[in-house]
Amino acid sequence: MVKPKLHQIDFLKSALTDDSPISPSDSIDAWLSDRRSSVKAFVEKIPLRSLRRWQSDPKTGNLAHETGGFFSIVGIHVSTNYGAINEWSQPIINQPEVGYLGFIAKEFGGILHLLVQAKIEPGNVNIVQLSPTLQATKSNYNQIHGGNKPRYIEYFNGTIPTKILVDQLQSEQGARFLKKRNRNIVVQVSSHEEVPITDDFRWLTIGQLKKLLTKDGVVNMDSRTVLACIGYGDYNDESIRLIHRLAPRSTNGKLVIESALNNERGEVDLSFILSWISGLKSKYELEITKIPLYDVRDWIVGDDTIQRKDCKYFNVIGVSTQIANREVISWDQPMIEPAQEGLVAFLVKPVNLVLHFLVQAKLEPGNLDILELAPTVQCLTGNYRTGHSEYSVPFVNEVLNSKKQLIMFDSKQSEEGGRFFREMNRSMIVLVDDNFEIGPYDNFCWMTLNQMYHLVEFNNYLNISARSLIACIPFN
Amino acid sequence: MVKPKLHQIDFLKSALTDDSPISPSDSIDAWLSDRRSSVKAFVEKIPLRSLRRWQSDPKTGNLAHETGGFFSIVGIHVSTNYGAINEWSQPIINQPEVGYLGFIAKEFGGILHLLVQAKIEPGNVNIVQLSPTLQATKSNYNQIHGGNKPRYIEYFNGTIPTKILVDQLQSEQGARFLKKRNRNIVVQVSSHEEVPITDDFRWLTIGQLKKLLTKDGVVNMDSRTVLACIGYGDYNDESIRLIHRLAPRSTNGKLVIESALNNERGEVDLSFILSWISGLKSKYELEITKIPLYDVRDWIVGDDTIQRKDCKYFNVIGVSTQIANREVISWDQPMIEPAQEGLVAFLVKPVNLVLHFLVQAKLEPGNLDILELAPTVQCLTGNYRTGHSEYSVPFVNEVLNSKKQLIMFDSKQSEEGGRFFREMNRSMIVLVDDNFEIGPYDNFCWMTLNQMYHLVEFNNYLNISARSLIACIPFN
Repeated sequence: MVKPKLHQIDFLKSALTDDSPISPSDSIDAWLSDRRSSVKAFVEKIPLRSLRRWQSDPKTGNLAHETGGFFSIVGIHVSTNYGAINEWSQPIINQPEVGYLGFIAKEFGGILHLLVQAKIEPGNVNIVQLSPTLQATKSNYNQIHGGNKPRYIEYFNGTIPTKILVDQLQSEQGARFLKKRNRNIVVQVSSHEEVPITDDFRWLTIGQLKKLLTKDGVVNMDSRTVLACIGYGDYNDESIRLIHRLAPRSTNGKLVIESALNNERGEVDLSFILSWISGLKSKYELEITKIPLYDVRDWIVGDDTIQRKDCKYFNVIGVSTQIANREVISWDQPMIEPAQEGLVAFLVKPVNLVLHFLVQAKLEPGNLDILELAPTVQCLTGNYRTGHSEYSVPFVNEVLNSKKQLIMFDSKQSEEGGRFFREMNRSMIVLVDDNFEIGPYDNFCWMTLNQMYHLVEFNNYLNISARSLIACIPFN
Repeated sequence: MVKPKLHQIDFLKSALTDDSPISPSDSIDAWLSDRRSSVKAFVEKIPLRSLRRWQSDPKTGNLAHETGGFFSIVGIHVSTNYGAINEWSQPIINQPEVGYLGFIAKEFGGILHLLVQAKIEPGNVNIVQLSPTLQATKSNYNQIHGGNKPRYIEYFNGTIPTKILVDQLQSEQGARFLKKRNRNIVVQVSSHEEVPITDDFRWLTIGQLKKLLTKDGVVNMDSRTVLACIGYGDYNDESIRLIHRLAPRSTNGKLVIESALNNERGEVDLSFILSWISGLKSKYELEITKIPLYDVRDWIVGDDTIQRKDCKYFNVIGVSTQIANREVISWDQPMIEPAQEGLVAFLVKPVNLVLHFLVQAKLEPGNLDILELAPTVQCLTGNYRTGHSEYSVPFVNEVLNSKKQLIMFDSKQSEEGGRFFREMNRSMIVLVDDNFEIGPYDNFCWMTLNQMYHLVEFNNYLNISARSLIACIPFN
């Protein structure tokens, strides 16, 4: 007698629909090309000391905007009993504000569509990627920089009444951000409500977005994290009928749908998973202290960049941007440039015909609560080569040496283009035998997609890499 | 098709059973008196500077055990945009370790019983109160103080195989502890397994514990928080049959059971509640910095005690204890002594015959995640008298001026006797009209018991006062 969430069946219908009369799938490439050519974007690396309106504190070296808004680059000292390295210090982005990442949803012909924006971000590889309807920091919507009010904010702040379908605080990259979270939100307007849109906005179904996610660098990180917060409910009469009607054509699609709706035939139930997490959070400790950037060991805080002596992990660089259709035409900011391309991957296996995902409980220094659930493999590619790294990454060989026909998903996805400079992660889902064993690791556990959707309803369970990857999984 | 949690119906059966052939209810008073008289406990206030094995850091004033174990008293600086006072500093208990609070459960005659201990704690008003089977800090079970290994630890650490029924990390007092959590756990052994017990242990049903909770200071805080983590499931065929058979006799009991099992006829569904919490966590900020105890404003760090200049809130005092049946016979420690008795209370109203609780989202400085859900009223009695306080407490008059026949629950319950010195809170549940309005406050929301049980499955949603109070609610 649990109250059924009526909108979950609407989400499922939208995810199983990969074309739309109001935004035909075969017109999207042309629209994106048009958007890319209609704006002039000029993005240039510049020395940190040359950044307009950004100041380096002479005592600490910390880098901040002159208004105190946006974000700052500070140092942290980390100590933990997790993993091979138990103490280090590093620069990190400090942005205590909670931003909005929100989609407006509306039914067209009985199918839920999400309003996406072809948005320019300085860090994007393709300059323009598909973002949520609204993507705004508190500094944005409080207009600290004196720009325009973000479009559509009134659908999210209560000014225009809507039905809230999803509303969760979710974490950002725990290795780069200090306890940063965004409000991932989907609001529905009635199908009679006229939402004014311009050329850079389009209504797409979830199925269309999932199809675009099979391509490299088309759908941005912010879209992916909100998509991942959309659950499709547990199996019920209605979803069985729906799947029967809009049945996925491929074997993979069938395995995925079973996993998305099924928490029943799993190896472990949700209370086992929660107990496993409680045990790990009791075992592992994480102590973070903010320190001056100048006191961060093994890093060089220079006039041009901030980087590690051995050039590992990432650099903090300065970027100057001029863009035509953004709130502010021209601005400078620090950005994070990765040292290498990254790899995020789930190993998956069918258990009683339900796909199970090998989930890693991973400690990252910026985590609010010690550990979050991550993909099986989440690393920078330079860090796992034997002999070239201070640690080895479990299961990386199983991912990279997999037979081609066992790769269910393989594309390159961008990190958030407002903070990360041209950072791409190879995103993979790889099938393994159903007798594949975890081995000696206590921080890995098999679970269904449905179980992950249940966890993601609550804050700070799935990390952004896991969310990004489950958003990519096509249902067809 | 959600996998039913089989143990939830066992919990419900146990909660509806308030006597037991193996521990008759009318024998419990005599047993407790016997336990109280069989041990010699000598508890004495002494100056902080006289505490054996505790040291005050000459530079910071912070108070710590010479081993670095147990806990320490440190200072914090708090800044927030929540409430009337936006900046203050205070002493706080720093105990980053996660302890165990655990019950062993076993069926006798088909009814689940929990193994309780008549446990002596220095801070207890009645010296002996009923505690969980295991109550151990990491220092305890790692034997930092060289005492005996805690009894029954092997049922909780995997040495003896058990079925885990409950396993959650839950917060302690957010005004007194800095981000402290304990692992609240219930493990079941088979009804054939012989668990050796001594005179200070007894098997009781949940219904028996709930009956004892109507008395002052019998069941300790640690028992209450674990009891609160026990959910009773949603209405299903089996629970309907069970309630029909073991039907609560009173009107109040019926209202409570409906609220415990029902998430359907509520005013708001769980996704609304989660959205309400996301909104508040986005709005309110909490910045905590550890500072030396000597730098805490308005507090006097003395040789005898640490206390506020105006004597408000609490004092840190020294206590010397000699006890016969504990791991360590004699020890000294700092404790928290409250400035006044406290009040915790829920206002409740029936909505479509289902009891709804008026829940407060409350910011406390030690919270891991800004806000946790608290009772309608949670305060020290001295702090709400008009003209005597810097702030007013909403709904306190409705609680204290209620008609007698509308008071559903009223008893005095102890705070944790290992850290808090003779601290009692008056714990009340008070009925209001079903047209009672929240008024201008955005941080209050009506919800059913069932909805609270769903939230408490996940960490850091309900604070310890709310958990303590929902544990007290009798089902009969």
